[in-house]
Amino acid sequence: MYANDGFRELDRQECLQLLAKVPVGRIVHTRQALPAVLPVNFALDGDGTVLLRTSAASELVRAIHGSVVAFEADQVDPDTQSGWSVVVTGAATVVTDAAEHERLVRTGPRSWAPAPHEVFVRIAPELVTGRELVGGRSLYGLTP
Amino acid sequence: MYANDGFRELDRQECLQLLAKVPVGRIVHTRQALPAVLPVNFALDGDGTVLLRTSAASELVRAIHGSVVAFEADQVDPDTQSGWSVVVTGAATVVTDAAEHERLVRTGPRSWAPAPHEVFVRIAPELVTGRELVGGRSLYGLTP
Repeated sequence: MYANDGFRELDRQECLQLLAKVPVGRIVHTRQALPAVLPVNFALDGDGTVLLRTSAASELVRAIHGSVVAFEADQVDPDTQSGWSVVVTGAATVVTDAAEHERLVRTGPRSWAPAPHEVFVRIAPELVTGRELVGGRSLYGLTP
Repeated sequence: MYANDGFRELDRQECLQLLAKVPVGRIVHTRQALPAVLPVNFALDGDGTVLLRTSAASELVRAIHGSVVAFEADQVDPDTQSGWSVVVTGAATVVTDAAEHERLVRTGPRSWAPAPHEVFVRIAPELVTGRELVGGRSLYGLTP
């Protein structure tokens, strides 16, 4: 969270409840020493772990496995000029246990762009932060 | 862009045209050695530069000034099961020129949460990448 920005901070429970409402978030990591961000489908596991499903051959898996990443989801409403954003920060690990993989094939997230060989990636909810803006300026305020 | 993920890559012109359609994006940077991401209002300058407006006192300014950041915006449509994502990567710098600041006060982006002392931050469009998914799986496919 950043100070002095006029947003209300959300507690962990509020954050996880909001995360459960949206199907797409963004995974933030470092790629070739540069900040990188990629939208992905996701699901929440019982303990707040973020689950991603992607191609085993994707560069994303190689980029994030074993490293600390941030996962962000948000929702804005132009009509009420309000919105929220939640960030889960923690270590990303590929699910290698066969039984767990099978469980996730049945119950886990699906991918927008299914690949023949998919893997599941867990992001541990080590740090869960969020903020809410109620009744900010119009989201169309940017239009010149 | 990541290979093997079934998305179509967008060229620079397509990316900038899409960016111009949305009022909110996400700034991706490193904070205290961890990946960080924060939604912000923005506007595009003529050359594709991303312009942010924030409190001069915000930690975001101190976190990104002079460093390379990524700025991401996306849009998804559950009805058509399609979406796009654009990422601008480049150096972030605070606008210090008084005349330029005045010009941006009149013509630049507005903030959701206005602060008494605001500054403008430019993100140079050194790298502009984007991808599009047309007719992917339902965005609601994640629901157990």
